[in-house]
Amino acid sequence: MAQGTLYIVSAPSGAGKSSLIQALLKTQPLYDTQVSISHTTRDMRPGEKHGEHYYFVSKTEFASMIQEDAFLEHAEVFGNHYGTSREAIEQVLSTGVDVFLDIDWQGAQQIRHKMPHARSIFVLPPSKEELDRRLRGRGQDSEIVIAKRMAQAVAEMSHYAEYDYLIVNDDFDLALSDLKTIIRAERLRMSRQKARHDALISKLLAD
Amino acid sequence: MAQGTLYIVSAPSGAGKSSLIQALLKTQPLYDTQVSISHTTRDMRPGEKHGEHYYFVSKTEFASMIQEDAFLEHAEVFGNHYGTSREAIEQVLSTGVDVFLDIDWQGAQQIRHKMPHARSIFVLPPSKEELDRRLRGRGQDSEIVIAKRMAQAVAEMSHYAEYDYLIVNDDFDLALSDLKTIIRAERLRMSRQKARHDALISKLLAD
Repeated sequence: MAQGTLYIVSAPSGAGKSSLIQALLKTQPLYDTQVSISHTTRDMRPGEKHGEHYYFVSKTEFASMIQEDAFLEHAEVFGNHYGTSREAIEQVLSTGVDVFLDIDWQGAQQIRHKMPHARSIFVLPPSKEELDRRLRGRGQDSEIVIAKRMAQAVAEMSHYAEYDYLIVNDDFDLALSDLKTIIRAERLRMSRQKARHDALISKLLAD
Repeated sequence: MAQGTLYIVSAPSGAGKSSLIQALLKTQPLYDTQVSISHTTRDMRPGEKHGEHYYFVSKTEFASMIQEDAFLEHAEVFGNHYGTSREAIEQVLSTGVDVFLDIDWQGAQQIRHKMPHARSIFVLPPSKEELDRRLRGRGQDSEIVIAKRMAQAVAEMSHYAEYDYLIVNDDFDLALSDLKTIIRAERLRMSRQKARHDALISKLLAD
C-alpha cells in the first residue's frame, strides 16, 4: 500500500483557503483525501462531534501528550490548546489516504521539520484591494480592527516562499483545479506509483 | 520571466512514449512546450529540415562541440553521432518554455547530473503481454529479433526507479492527461509561480 501524502496548506485569512479545502473534500471520496482533525482543550460547541470536528481532551491529557512528544505541532490560542497528533495523521496516511492540514506558517515550519515528506501549499488572494475587501467582511468592524487583520495577513504572507507550491485564488474554480492538479501529480510520483504498480513492475522486469 | 522546466522522458520501445510526446505537443502551444532538437552527424533524409528535426553538423563540428563540453549528453549509434546541446536547451528554457527530451536511461543519467532541476518521467506499458504484442509489430520479424527487443526493453525498464514520475500507458488518453497534470503541477511550484506573480507578491507584501 502506497503511503498517502500530507499536505500543509497556509494562507492569510481572506485568501479563501478554507473554502478551497472544503470544496476539494466534497469532490474527493474519503478513501482518497481527508482533512486532519486536531486535538483541543477548548469546550465542545453545540453541533460539534468528538473525532469529527476535533478530538476534545482535558488539559491534563493534552499536557501528557506534549510530554510524550505526541504532537507534530501545538499552539495556544486565547487560553485554549490545539495540537496535531502525529499518530492520528500517520494512521490515516498509512492507509494511502492524503491528509490536508490547514495551519499557519509557524505550525507549517514545525510540521515540515518533523514530516519531511509533507508537501506544502500557500494560497494568495488575487490583489491587495480584494484582500482588503474580504478582510472588511460585512463592514461592521472598526478601521483599527481591519488594519490589525491586514497586518496579520501581511505577516502570514511574508512566509509564502517557504512552501512547495503557490496558488493564486483569483478564479475559485481555477484555484480548485490547481489544487487537484497538485494532488494528482503528487500521486504520479515514483514512490507512490512504485507501490501502486508493484505487481505490474515485477512482471515487466521478470525474464 | 520564469525559467521553463526540462523534462526527460524515457521508456522501453513499445511503451508509446513518442506518441504521447507528439500528442502532448499538438495540444500545447509552442510558446508553452517544445521538444528538444538534437545535433547529429548523420545525413539529412528527404523531408527533414535543419533546425526542425535535427541540427545537421559535420563530424568535425561535432568533435569540436564535444571538446567545448557543449553537450549535455551525446552518443554514437551505428556510426552516427547524436548530441543534446546545452546552449540550445538553455536558450529555450530561458524564454519560459518547457522542453521535452526523449532519451534513454543512460542519456537521462548524464542530463540529471548536469541539469539538476530537470524532471524525469518514465513510461511503462500496461502489461508484459501488451509489450510483447507491440514489440512484434506487424509480425514480420524473427523470434530472435523480438527476443532481443524484449531484452533491450527489460534493460531500459530496470532503470525506472531513477525517475521522478511514473506513467503507466494503459489507456492512452489517461496517460496523456497524466503527462499534462505533471506539467501543470510543476508550473504551480514556488520557483515558477514566484517569478510569474512577482508584481502581485510585491504589492501584497507592501505596507
